[in-house]
Amino acid sequence: MTSSWEQKTFKLKTRTKGCYLVTDEIVANLPELKHYKVGTLNLFMQHTSAALSLNENWDSDVRLDMNDSLDRIVVEHEDYRHSAEGPDDMTGHIKSSLVGASLTIPITNGRLNTGTWQGIWYMEFRRFNHNRSIVATINGLKE
Amino acid sequence: MTSSWEQKTFKLKTRTKGCYLVTDEIVANLPELKHYKVGTLNLFMQHTSAALSLNENWDSDVRLDMNDSLDRIVVEHEDYRHSAEGPDDMTGHIKSSLVGASLTIPITNGRLNTGTWQGIWYMEFRRFNHNRSIVATINGLKE
Amino acid sequence: MTSSWEQKTFKLKTRTKGCYLVTDEIVANLPELKHYKVGTLNLFMQHTSAALSLNENWDSDVRLDMNDSLDRIVVEHEDYRHSAEGPDDMTGHIKSSLVGASLTIPITNGRLNTGTWQGIWYMEFRRFNHNRSIVATINGLKE
Repeated sequence: MTSSWEQKTFKLKTRTKGCYLVTDEIVANLPELKHYKVGTLNLFMQHTSAALSLNENWDSDVRLDMNDSLDRIVVEHEDYRHSAEGPDDMTGHIKSSLVGASLTIPITNGRLNTGTWQGIWYMEFRRFNHNRSIVATINGLKE
Repeated sequence: MTSSWEQKTFKLKTRTKGCYLVTDEIVANLPELKHYKVGTLNLFMQHTSAALSLNENWDSDVRLDMNDSLDRIVVEHEDYRHSAEGPDDMTGHIKSSLVGASLTIPITNGRLNTGTWQGIWYMEFRRFNHNRSIVATINGLKE
Repeated sequence: MTSSWEQKTFKLKTRTKGCYLVTDEIVANLPELKHYKVGTLNLFMQHTSAALSLNENWDSDVRLDMNDSLDRIVVEHEDYRHSAEGPDDMTGHIKSSLVGASLTIPITNGRLNTGTWQGIWYMEFRRFNHNRSIVATINGLKE
């Protein structure tokens, strides 16, 4: 086995505010994964009002509840200084720092070693449609 | 020195809702650490209503306060759609995305290079006892 | 190209409570970055009442709003058990677990591959001046 790196940038499908399960979309962009016996995948979103997270991959209600709950925790119309782009602008920045813009996921035998109920979530915090870029970096041992 | 990888999955001791200092429990599962001169350890929890964090390793009151504070930030009985498993189900998912399910920690001279007051915390968000799995991935230079 | 590691610890400039854009300060401490064709940088803050994040690098109002917003989400004077060092002590620990103490950023062609509007933020949660240490670990392919 030889130590190897792969890195590529790709865009997620355009979406508006909400939480989206994107495991399949991300894996489809990374056919290289299947050659890695052991390693890590770093997913890095190049944006400041969206986030990546790991959460429930089965019941889509979890994604609706998450979106609503984040709206209760980070409240719009709080007299933000940074408001030129609307009420979802500053709240999007705050949610992005709370949830985080990147993930590091273990790779085992050519697959992401996530739990049974875990999927990769893209959280979009802006109402206007966005088309977000992700830098994916794979490092590990290749067969 | 040679570049090397180790990866293993282990379970944390069964626990109920609360914050737990698990540095010693995790290091005991990873005797390989001491052979790495420089590198990183990725700890990845394969669950969606628990979290890993770094925080105070001395005063156990910090863990009690953290648990209570997260309950004030992410409130139960908010009329969640996803509620079949009880009031700590959806709130557990939200806390997991806020705190995060994984950590990457530097390794230096065979030890985790954490600060004087820093320990690894396991946060369990469900009241029912759980037995959580962690995938640990070490990458670095071995002597 | 050869696989390589670099690791160093450095201190950020002393600062009081607030959010600070520190991309230039961090890159100035890591001249090694420019030799890496592909890789990752892990930044690890060795402290439990401060955080590292990625957010807006242009409008400084975002940093003021973020600081105020975190104060509304994690409220002082909530009757915390852990209060010996003042009202910003326990709240600092909570904010640190919510935002996180470390970041992993992709390196591409000798530069951090962040988005156009993304910068590295140091968030200090204590009012008293602090001088925080960061462990930086670079891993990648060097030309």
